[in-house]
Amino acid sequence: MLNLDFHPSGRHFLQIPGPSPVPDRILRAMSLPTIDHRGPEFGALGCELLGKLKKVFKTESPVIIYPASGTGAWEAALVNTLSLGDKVLMFETGHFAALWQKMALRLGLEPEFLGLTGAEGWRHGVQADMIEARLREDIDHQIKAVCVVHNETSTGVTSDIAAVRRAIDAAAHPALFLVDTISGLASADYRHDEWGVDVTVSGSQKGLMLPPGISFNAISDKAIVASQDSKLPKSFWAWDEIIEANRNGYWPYTPNTNLLYGLNEALDMLLEEGLDHVLARHQRWAAGVRKAVEAWGLEIQCQDPEVYSPVLTGVVMPEGVDADEVRQLIYERFDLSLGMGLGKAKGKMFRIGHLGDCNDLTLVAALGGCEAGMKLAGVVLKGSGVTAALDHFANHPLEAAK
Amino acid sequence: MLNLDFHPSGRHFLQIPGPSPVPDRILRAMSLPTIDHRGPEFGALGCELLGKLKKVFKTESPVIIYPASGTGAWEAALVNTLSLGDKVLMFETGHFAALWQKMALRLGLEPEFLGLTGAEGWRHGVQADMIEARLREDIDHQIKAVCVVHNETSTGVTSDIAAVRRAIDAAAHPALFLVDTISGLASADYRHDEWGVDVTVSGSQKGLMLPPGISFNAISDKAIVASQDSKLPKSFWAWDEIIEANRNGYWPYTPNTNLLYGLNEALDMLLEEGLDHVLARHQRWAAGVRKAVEAWGLEIQCQDPEVYSPVLTGVVMPEGVDADEVRQLIYERFDLSLGMGLGKAKGKMFRIGHLGDCNDLTLVAALGGCEAGMKLAGVVLKGSGVTAALDHFANHPLEAAK
Amino acid sequence: MLNLDFHPSGRHFLQIPGPSPVPDRILRAMSLPTIDHRGPEFGALGCELLGKLKKVFKTESPVIIYPASGTGAWEAALVNTLSLGDKVLMFETGHFAALWQKMALRLGLEPEFLGLTGAEGWRHGVQADMIEARLREDIDHQIKAVCVVHNETSTGVTSDIAAVRRAIDAAAHPALFLVDTISGLASADYRHDEWGVDVTVSGSQKGLMLPPGISFNAISDKAIVASQDSKLPKSFWAWDEIIEANRNGYWPYTPNTNLLYGLNEALDMLLEEGLDHVLARHQRWAAGVRKAVEAWGLEIQCQDPEVYSPVLTGVVMPEGVDADEVRQLIYERFDLSLGMGLGKAKGKMFRIGHLGDCNDLTLVAALGGCEAGMKLAGVVLKGSGVTAALDHFANHPLEAAK
Amino acid sequence: MLNLDFHPSGRHFLQIPGPSPVPDRILRAMSLPTIDHRGPEFGALGCELLGKLKKVFKTESPVIIYPASGTGAWEAALVNTLSLGDKVLMFETGHFAALWQKMALRLGLEPEFLGLTGAEGWRHGVQADMIEARLREDIDHQIKAVCVVHNETSTGVTSDIAAVRRAIDAAAHPALFLVDTISGLASADYRHDEWGVDVTVSGSQKGLMLPPGISFNAISDKAIVASQDSKLPKSFWAWDEIIEANRNGYWPYTPNTNLLYGLNEALDMLLEEGLDHVLARHQRWAAGVRKAVEAWGLEIQCQDPEVYSPVLTGVVMPEGVDADEVRQLIYERFDLSLGMGLGKAKGKMFRIGHLGDCNDLTLVAALGGCEAGMKLAGVVLKGSGVTAALDHFANHPLEAAK
Repeated sequence: MLNLDFHPSGRHFLQIPGPSPVPDRILRAMSLPTIDHRGPEFGALGCELLGKLKKVFKTESPVIIYPASGTGAWEAALVNTLSLGDKVLMFETGHFAALWQKMALRLGLEPEFLGLTGAEGWRHGVQADMIEARLREDIDHQIKAVCVVHNETSTGVTSDIAAVRRAIDAAAHPALFLVDTISGLASADYRHDEWGVDVTVSGSQKGLMLPPGISFNAISDKAIVASQDSKLPKSFWAWDEIIEANRNGYWPYTPNTNLLYGLNEALDMLLEEGLDHVLARHQRWAAGVRKAVEAWGLEIQCQDPEVYSPVLTGVVMPEGVDADEVRQLIYERFDLSLGMGLGKAKGKMFRIGHLGDCNDLTLVAALGGCEAGMKLAGVVLKGSGVTAALDHFANHPLEAAK
Repeated sequence: MLNLDFHPSGRHFLQIPGPSPVPDRILRAMSLPTIDHRGPEFGALGCELLGKLKKVFKTESPVIIYPASGTGAWEAALVNTLSLGDKVLMFETGHFAALWQKMALRLGLEPEFLGLTGAEGWRHGVQADMIEARLREDIDHQIKAVCVVHNETSTGVTSDIAAVRRAIDAAAHPALFLVDTISGLASADYRHDEWGVDVTVSGSQKGLMLPPGISFNAISDKAIVASQDSKLPKSFWAWDEIIEANRNGYWPYTPNTNLLYGLNEALDMLLEEGLDHVLARHQRWAAGVRKAVEAWGLEIQCQDPEVYSPVLTGVVMPEGVDADEVRQLIYERFDLSLGMGLGKAKGKMFRIGHLGDCNDLTLVAALGGCEAGMKLAGVVLKGSGVTAALDHFANHPLEAAK
Repeated sequence: MLNLDFHPSGRHFLQIPGPSPVPDRILRAMSLPTIDHRGPEFGALGCELLGKLKKVFKTESPVIIYPASGTGAWEAALVNTLSLGDKVLMFETGHFAALWQKMALRLGLEPEFLGLTGAEGWRHGVQADMIEARLREDIDHQIKAVCVVHNETSTGVTSDIAAVRRAIDAAAHPALFLVDTISGLASADYRHDEWGVDVTVSGSQKGLMLPPGISFNAISDKAIVASQDSKLPKSFWAWDEIIEANRNGYWPYTPNTNLLYGLNEALDMLLEEGLDHVLARHQRWAAGVRKAVEAWGLEIQCQDPEVYSPVLTGVVMPEGVDADEVRQLIYERFDLSLGMGLGKAKGKMFRIGHLGDCNDLTLVAALGGCEAGMKLAGVVLKGSGVTAALDHFANHPLEAAK
Repeated sequence: MLNLDFHPSGRHFLQIPGPSPVPDRILRAMSLPTIDHRGPEFGALGCELLGKLKKVFKTESPVIIYPASGTGAWEAALVNTLSLGDKVLMFETGHFAALWQKMALRLGLEPEFLGLTGAEGWRHGVQADMIEARLREDIDHQIKAVCVVHNETSTGVTSDIAAVRRAIDAAAHPALFLVDTISGLASADYRHDEWGVDVTVSGSQKGLMLPPGISFNAISDKAIVASQDSKLPKSFWAWDEIIEANRNGYWPYTPNTNLLYGLNEALDMLLEEGLDHVLARHQRWAAGVRKAVEAWGLEIQCQDPEVYSPVLTGVVMPEGVDADEVRQLIYERFDLSLGMGLGKAKGKMFRIGHLGDCNDLTLVAALGGCEAGMKLAGVVLKGSGVTAALDHFANHPLEAAK
């Protein structure tokens, strides 16, 4: 049997912004025996979970499930709707927006990468006005799609998707609207239909609290129409055969059955608690964590309070401190994993995930580990973040779930 | 919690040719907590399992692991090595060979589909002489790749891959050699290096005894060179970044961690038992099942004893019997899942899988269910297959594993 | 991690008459985290399962749950109701009746052991007329309790408990009536209230399909009254404090929490299927197994068809065959555990359990292993038992569970 | 499936002084299939774990394993060594000492209960001088056994067992020495042989990190000799047959197999880490928790620093505060279970367990929950305990386990 932990006792604290800690209830569901993916129980399971999934995406349209991790669903969104050489407008909010742009390049698209200049760009959300202005310039509609990241996992910024929709509409531009909410779904408010998104990309290992290995495309009618003209080669990612097979709860090729068991359980957990309650819980945790950062006298990576992420918080280290060394020390001494700074933020910040199978005291523990670790690493702190967070949680009770 | 079985008591007998029954040991490994895919334990795990994996493919070259089910690895093999409009020579051995050919078409390749004529084609293996003849004709080397299926899951025929290699060499043709052994690996003898295969495609849910969700490309140096010229758009499937990240046991994007735990455990199980012993075990089971079919007086789908599959056996129903009705009755009355006839064989045969977490008595049970179910369905049987198989197993002891 | 199986592949067939194969659903329930046995969730769980448990014993009276294996509940039945030197009338039906009698001796009681003479005694059930006659002789009511075993696990004989009750009543004798149905409960028909039993002893690891570690005393009002005068020292086993604490779902000392999770799940499974259906299922399996023994031309240990056990069948080996050698060979070659002959039956028979997480094909497999193993061991068989059982199961469908 | 938690997200913090949080590794081991308790794998397992168990008790003598929870092992210690009417000298250190004395009474012994007077008695350990004085008075050796509790779970006091041994020796008294270390074993230093204990009583659900359901008697030669003259009735608890069957790794009656799997895993975990390291870990946690209590300005129940328990800490509430109301509030708001005050300490204190599957941050979380909960309940605190504990853990690194 694997030894996955170098620490002799206790549970590891996995406070990275995903993969998030998986509830035992989901791990248990995933340990059910694999069944015949062509048999009647499977069809019943497929129909049930496809129905529940729509509620989480807040859509009436199909949601495609891929037996592949999240990066695959990025590719799927592009190859199903676009053709070689198509221009796409992307917005640089951070490392993952940059990776998606790089993928678009590799696939033969022509991405244009808007964004605020310099390091500032990674401390704010999507600027809808910049998108609107650019679309207005695009008089002959060369731009075929606008692609933005909803919750930028590398920075802890949650962009205003409704505003981007309004920008596209204000420009009266026909571009498709593609949104990555891999790390936002089921932790941050997200509304596929209401916000007029054409393809929503998401994954299993964040707010859905599953291990990685499943990803999604929620698609609009407009996206389906676009897919019929799209010329990028595709087979595994092609929507058409999946939609057809999904009608009876099946897939055209072998789905990843045991992760689907976990997905079904996750959906039950979310819907039993109530999505509104789930979202409020994440907002409350995020506020508590920010109270801690404030008490420490440190900066939050996101500089615009309106778009603070409810999923993760980026903590900026003072000048001269190597954030990765701090993280390493915290990991070794306190059995706590934090997210590293990525790309332009490498070494400058660490990220605290507040999602998945957590509660107030889990976060208190995580903040305790950060606090003690930073002190050991010589970071000068203004005050105790862990007690500030504790006071916040004590004074802001979550109303009971239904 | 999911209810996955309509029967009130006992374990379901999953005797389809994959997904195969998953050993509890693997399900247990998969229920370990998800860890940070950027942390040190993960890197150690990655390095360890990539090393063990090579032993199962019998290769010294890299094996790419995709967090995606097997169909994805088919696509990966094509898009990494080929360019739009490339000619590929494929051989029709059955339904899965046909699906791969269909995928090649969708991806913009020009597959040529060799094969024996009529229904006969699905009852024999790859005809290496036909491939050799075709390659000899291809004087200007328009054909960029030869693609064959090693163990055709739809028929129970295991083609002679070494013979195809010899055919390509005899024709002195530079085409790449791509082989699908999704259902053959770790159940049927397979030798990536010795047989000179350029890309071996495989999956997790057959001989590796995992749930579906992981797939593989084992690749030769020649394939890597070809990938540098390949023009098909690719990003998720691209080998280059994966090979690079794998050097330290990591992946460029989120791998499906919990299935990798299962894979690591599966590799331990196979290597502890010894691959030779594992292969002998499958051969012995297959022989026992064929004894049963013979005793029943029924035909085996595969008509060439030299290429009987050790993984599954196709049982042909007498004229006038609907094989799917027999299967349905067996499922309902005996809690036993069998594989259906696919494509050209639909309704004419059923398939008994003899792979995964089985032993002699599991197969005796399965054959018992087939026998009783066929009788109930009015199929006239010559004798008792279950006792024939039992005699076979009793008289052919497996030497003890080391 | 433990290596519990010397065989390289497949599930072990555990066909001993208990511990029975535990359904995964129960193992999964048992893996929930241990909780505070003084907290509110625990009290709710305790109340719920004590209520469901009564339905399985068919009683309105309290059922005491001990965090101890079945032998403990034998002791509890005696020490709660009797005093040093008390005479008890016991009936020798087999090895377990003999062990209970030996326990009574050790505890300072004076057991009188009725029974048919010789080896015959172990091939029949309790003879109610002998009990009646003995009680009629006991004019001054020296006998304080009548103790019988309902389902004798060593022989496969299920005695007629209602007849013993009638015998006691016919003799107008005030003795308490103590019944061991450790291996009968939830597999064989059992009715604590209707049959006027004062203390029913049972355990977890048979029809309740749990691992061993929990045992029971279902008790009548008369037993409770008797417990107030009983003089045998007792503390751990004492009913009074348990009954008191159980009112709120708790126990006076630490209960074995995780096995109680399993018990709760087991009760749900039995009540969801319906007890009548569960009992019919066992009767049907037993009939199939007897068909096999008959086809082999061997003798069943129980010589009275009216009391054939639905839980297990004792198979008598021909003169000169060492049953334990046959069992050993079957174990080694076919990964199948059978029960050995115990006490007077040692070496003369083996026992096939048909209880726990089984279905028709599980039993077909087990019978297959017996058949092949006996042949390998040189036992001359008249015909094929496995096909006889298969025909029985095919021709006697179980009506669908509700 | 059971719903065992009223909180919608995250893991419950089980910080009662047992049952302790069970490591997943143990829960996983317990979910292995139940095997034949008469088969060869079982015998091998039994021998292996009986050997490893001696190392944890630090004894060369037999350790009896009961398939029963801890209270049963108290009874076993008494009924195996004593006879009706025997005088035993017990020492009142708290609630569990009082319960053991009550049990002795129920079993027909004549316990004499020494102790410090008043509530003070529960704030100190065993006074060896009082025992010595009493034994010196007992010139005709009426006292047959001295019974003390090593780690009193109700108060957080760990008595000096070696001192009691010296006291008995100093009085040259032949009484047996019986010690309960149910909650001490494998968390607090304990040495059965070196300290000359005759019967050590222990249980599974504390330092061994198992669910409840297994208990122990480690026995000396002198105890075995005494058991041959003991007259208390016994059968289930009798050592003789168990010792005999244990020679080959078996038990005379059905053991609780799946908990034994867990025990085997627990022993591996403890011995892999090294007992010394395990004990140092608990001492360090206890010191951190006491730092917190000190920072809060509250009293620790144990008033003698030499016998502070490494397993749990009793926190005394200020006059006028109902400790149970505070506990209830903490449970409801922070999903954290604490131990209640028992017996004479009811309502006056709560107990923090620092044992089982914990680490520094788990305790930080628990202390955080206590701190916030006490504030919400209006308890006036002098300072922050959580930061004091954090500083302690940061400044006192545990040397790496081997």
